[in-house]
Amino acid sequence: MQLHKSIGLVGVLLASAATAQTFQRLGACPTLGCVFPPDQADFLAGQYFDIRLEVHAPINGSEATSLMPDEEFTFTIAKGNGSAVAATEYFGLSEPELERWNFSWYEDLFARDAKKPSIVNVTAKAYRRVALYEPGEYTATLTYNSGEKTVATWFVRDLAEERKTKNVIIFIGDGMTTNMITAARLIAHKTVNGKYMTKMQMDKFPILGHQMTHSIDTFITDSANSASALYTGHKSTVNCLGVYADSSKDPFDDPKVETIAELFHRLTGGHVGIVSTAYIADATPAALTAHTRDRGQYGAVVDSFLNGITNYTWTSWGGPDVLFGGGAEQFYSPELGGETYMGKDYYQEFANKGYQVIWNNTALQAASSEEKTLGIFSVSNMAKWLDRNVYKTNLNQSLSPSGDESMALDQPGLKEMTLKALDILIKRSGDKGFFLMSEAASIDKMMHVLDYDRALGELLELDDTVKATIAKLEDECLLKETLILVTADHGHGFDVMGSVDTKYLAAQNTDRKKRDAVGTYQRSGLSQYINTGNLTYTDSNFPSNWDPRYTLFQGLMADPDRRETWSVRKDGPREPAVAQDEEEEDFIANPEDGEGGILLNGTLPIEDDQGVHSLTDVPVFAMGPCQEKFGGVYNSIDIFFGMAECLGLARGKPSGY
Amino acid sequence: MQLHKSIGLVGVLLASAATAQTFQRLGACPTLGCVFPPDQADFLAGQYFDIRLEVHAPINGSEATSLMPDEEFTFTIAKGNGSAVAATEYFGLSEPELERWNFSWYEDLFARDAKKPSIVNVTAKAYRRVALYEPGEYTATLTYNSGEKTVATWFVRDLAEERKTKNVIIFIGDGMTTNMITAARLIAHKTVNGKYMTKMQMDKFPILGHQMTHSIDTFITDSANSASALYTGHKSTVNCLGVYADSSKDPFDDPKVETIAELFHRLTGGHVGIVSTAYIADATPAALTAHTRDRGQYGAVVDSFLNGITNYTWTSWGGPDVLFGGGAEQFYSPELGGETYMGKDYYQEFANKGYQVIWNNTALQAASSEEKTLGIFSVSNMAKWLDRNVYKTNLNQSLSPSGDESMALDQPGLKEMTLKALDILIKRSGDKGFFLMSEAASIDKMMHVLDYDRALGELLELDDTVKATIAKLEDECLLKETLILVTADHGHGFDVMGSVDTKYLAAQNTDRKKRDAVGTYQRSGLSQYINTGNLTYTDSNFPSNWDPRYTLFQGLMADPDRRETWSVRKDGPREPAVAQDEEEEDFIANPEDGEGGILLNGTLPIEDDQGVHSLTDVPVFAMGPCQEKFGGVYNSIDIFFGMAECLGLARGKPSGY
Repeated sequence: MQLHKSIGLVGVLLASAATAQTFQRLGACPTLGCVFPPDQADFLAGQYFDIRLEVHAPINGSEATSLMPDEEFTFTIAKGNGSAVAATEYFGLSEPELERWNFSWYEDLFARDAKKPSIVNVTAKAYRRVALYEPGEYTATLTYNSGEKTVATWFVRDLAEERKTKNVIIFIGDGMTTNMITAARLIAHKTVNGKYMTKMQMDKFPILGHQMTHSIDTFITDSANSASALYTGHKSTVNCLGVYADSSKDPFDDPKVETIAELFHRLTGGHVGIVSTAYIADATPAALTAHTRDRGQYGAVVDSFLNGITNYTWTSWGGPDVLFGGGAEQFYSPELGGETYMGKDYYQEFANKGYQVIWNNTALQAASSEEKTLGIFSVSNMAKWLDRNVYKTNLNQSLSPSGDESMALDQPGLKEMTLKALDILIKRSGDKGFFLMSEAASIDKMMHVLDYDRALGELLELDDTVKATIAKLEDECLLKETLILVTADHGHGFDVMGSVDTKYLAAQNTDRKKRDAVGTYQRSGLSQYINTGNLTYTDSNFPSNWDPRYTLFQGLMADPDRRETWSVRKDGPREPAVAQDEEEEDFIANPEDGEGGILLNGTLPIEDDQGVHSLTDVPVFAMGPCQEKFGGVYNSIDIFFGMAECLGLARGKPSGY
Repeated sequence: MQLHKSIGLVGVLLASAATAQTFQRLGACPTLGCVFPPDQADFLAGQYFDIRLEVHAPINGSEATSLMPDEEFTFTIAKGNGSAVAATEYFGLSEPELERWNFSWYEDLFARDAKKPSIVNVTAKAYRRVALYEPGEYTATLTYNSGEKTVATWFVRDLAEERKTKNVIIFIGDGMTTNMITAARLIAHKTVNGKYMTKMQMDKFPILGHQMTHSIDTFITDSANSASALYTGHKSTVNCLGVYADSSKDPFDDPKVETIAELFHRLTGGHVGIVSTAYIADATPAALTAHTRDRGQYGAVVDSFLNGITNYTWTSWGGPDVLFGGGAEQFYSPELGGETYMGKDYYQEFANKGYQVIWNNTALQAASSEEKTLGIFSVSNMAKWLDRNVYKTNLNQSLSPSGDESMALDQPGLKEMTLKALDILIKRSGDKGFFLMSEAASIDKMMHVLDYDRALGELLELDDTVKATIAKLEDECLLKETLILVTADHGHGFDVMGSVDTKYLAAQNTDRKKRDAVGTYQRSGLSQYINTGNLTYTDSNFPSNWDPRYTLFQGLMADPDRRETWSVRKDGPREPAVAQDEEEEDFIANPEDGEGGILLNGTLPIEDDQGVHSLTDVPVFAMGPCQEKFGGVYNSIDIFFGMAECLGLARGKPSGY
């Protein structure tokens, strides 16, 4: 009776859980028995991962059951049509300890407003650091509640172990979409009668693909989750770095998956470089070495760059050859205001392990290419291209990486960091080859604050960096041995619809009249960013005028309240919305932003002061060995499998065999 | 002195003209001497075109000159480093007559408000139906005002004359962007833990490209101009069909360029099919045969389908084998309210030339595949997929193609029209091969009215049509002899940013509270369009529920005032804005649209009641012979050159030689 009742209940629960949308009990677990990695997971042969099993017993809400959380659940693995064997036997592990916890969630916004959470009791186990070596299909079965089953089909891809590229460079334009590339091209490259006289470097790549960026359990991703998919071949949940999200409170016990950096180092001794214009503990660089359900664990992220994972036996990790970015506050000691892991001075920690430590562009240029190098160039995110090159007084802020509150005036750009990273990696890696991730982080950060000009400046800097990288590899005779990818981790809903006569807009008295300054179709005209002004750049393509009378009529689909002038913000990055009531987080248009512009009500929840990510597939530009693997349309995880295959990282048996 | 003064003036004028943006004196002519085709034009060897020369003498405004419009201008052509010869000699033509006219324009919005137009006197000539046969660079020089020169460099591409494909099918999703494809995939294809269980047909194409859609003289295009670029290899101006825009008032005297359909018919006797869900005189189908500066000349467009160009000697044209679409009002006689060319009954005109004429899907299915066929299925644009398949009572409108004001209930969809078109083309073309253009027109039309659901329905119907087309070609053993392209002509700034709890939104009392119904990132959840509901379709992928509680948080960047509920419009296509003062064209949110939704102020000029096109590069999916020519990033005109090369349409000498 118990069994039948349980089955009947589960039938109802499934239908109910399927409607959970704004909130979910647990992302990739619609039933009451959870297996992570879940159904449909793909694996690289030999890739390390953890298995997490959970059985949920909701005690109230629409899924309420009178069952106690099952402590007797079992778990088996079957390869192909083979027979199912206990996971302990399959992996040669002893049975892990049973864990217990509970958590709560809201079934929808009405339940949230009524403050009626649903409580769930949980029993759980974790199998740590296992791997599947034989390509093919596996069936992982959790049996619980006296016969209920959650079945996960896993796929180990059949990839050649032969290495086809010596090096991989992946450039990530955070939040970069095709729409943004089109806009950047328009402001920086001249047309004559509809023909571009120069091209973006990306436009010259032989292979174009699109990757789908959605999460495992939601259709909009964040940068942690999307970077994890690109680096591990496993999609996960928003805020996760290199783990599947379980329901426990501990942000460090979630089931891990091994990253491309970890695999490359462990299996080949290859050298790794990490470069970003963000604070370096930010999600996109962090996802190469960190494994946590909470991307906000910045101190632990920085520790993982240096020491790898230390709370569990995991992969071998020796630290990157290069780590360049911002985010000094996670390095300098708490005495100076730093917020570091276990209160340590991470400049010292890196130095203790043999790293040269540098804090500005002059030191970067002078640095030895033979040593492992930590370069931290500012507190928080690094300065934007537009401020470093055009509106330079905006650098006058107390952001020195030393932590002494002096200014960080001598910051390198993405190009300078990337070229030095290449110097070091080429010098140090020898025959082993290298993997370099270089991120233009502030395309995303500036789109979030609706600062379109700065975002496009960052995108153009990325393109310029790719161009300089190709030239350098050609000089070093490494171009044919290096797979170069340029892609993004997700989009923002951005586009350009025409031009704005900013002079006319400013001269009108009402918002409705100001709207007449917008020119669409035949009134959009040509780009005045490139046809007027006299700014020039050596061997690079950037606008000759960032402040023309006729600007781009550009923007995002989803915004907070804001005031639009469609003019460059000369005083530094934009702050479109401010809280009218700090406690309530009730954001309104910033009265100090966009003076004389059109006041526009937003569509986002009023507690949001920024734009948000979007669904669109993002472009992938590929050149070099294996480039053909990156054409057409595919899932974000296929970027991982493509890189891993090209580097020959699949392993049909444990190393040492 | 006259000469020097003139040169000095021109220097100033150039700088001034370069700032013309919202309005332009004449698009592709920034100087006072105009050559069309202009500088940087590319040509297919042997492609017919007209040459238009103009000399402008502005009599007021910032460009005012005391010069009379030059009547003694000269024009030469030089091939490569060869000497320049008079165009009459080069082409073996007698000197054309001098023409004279004037026109006016506004220098900017202030001049418009002040009603101060700038007047320009013009002298002009036209050289009709010429061609360049030898590949390479040409210099075309207009000399005017006693020594001023406008120099145009022309390029005749060096393409093999060998034919590589028997057939070409180009599908155009009007206004379709990558972002929309991503959204359509989300509502119609199921994911399990982040992996799609089925794919869009487009996602399966081996080759992906991006094409740049901008106009010759503005960065936002319309569908006339962009279709002309795709079909002729020549970018032009908004509203132009197969011509460069001159400054004369006559919409039929502008310099023409031969289209892919015309070339294919003239040079190979190949068979042509034209299919669209729009009224068939709309820009995308029209641009295959019409040559006019004004896309609004619908009657003349319809005549051009049948009779080609009749006001000048032009190419040979025999009419398409297939012409399927809406727009009956340009066919039935004026006695029934038709608005036809020269008052004729175009059903009769087509019948007189041997066409079978059909008016509904039943007749379409029953029609002979051996005859040329005209199929006109409704007045105006055809019914949308969502109304034909889900909200069928919306078909109850007096739109019968007969013109008798009965209802057009039995309309085919794009798939039915395209498959029948293939039947006819395959049967009739024999060894000659065929060229078919099939347009999903209402992706664009529904995005214009912010009706996201209907737009995505049209996109899914396009994908289903492509799928059925491939299956049919495979059945007919023609798949390997047919180049298939799926692309767009321009974008709309659209994206999806999350989900909306429509039940919660409706239950809130203020717009600011309603905004809390929006779920972004981890609150976006999974697609309830495919995970709920019970709508099913035979062998096709469409949503199982168009009206779930949790909908897509989707939209455009540039809008009129409107009210958003993010719910399907069950009563037919949306009308987001209405005029509050018909004379003033002052549009406000339609009080009858989006009841209970959030009122949002637009950013577009208040005389706009619709969304507008955007800048973004649009995707190109290619399979079949020559598919490799369509990967990477390129200009829209390269689609023409790719198709023409694949069909072997370049000619090194005049036919008959």
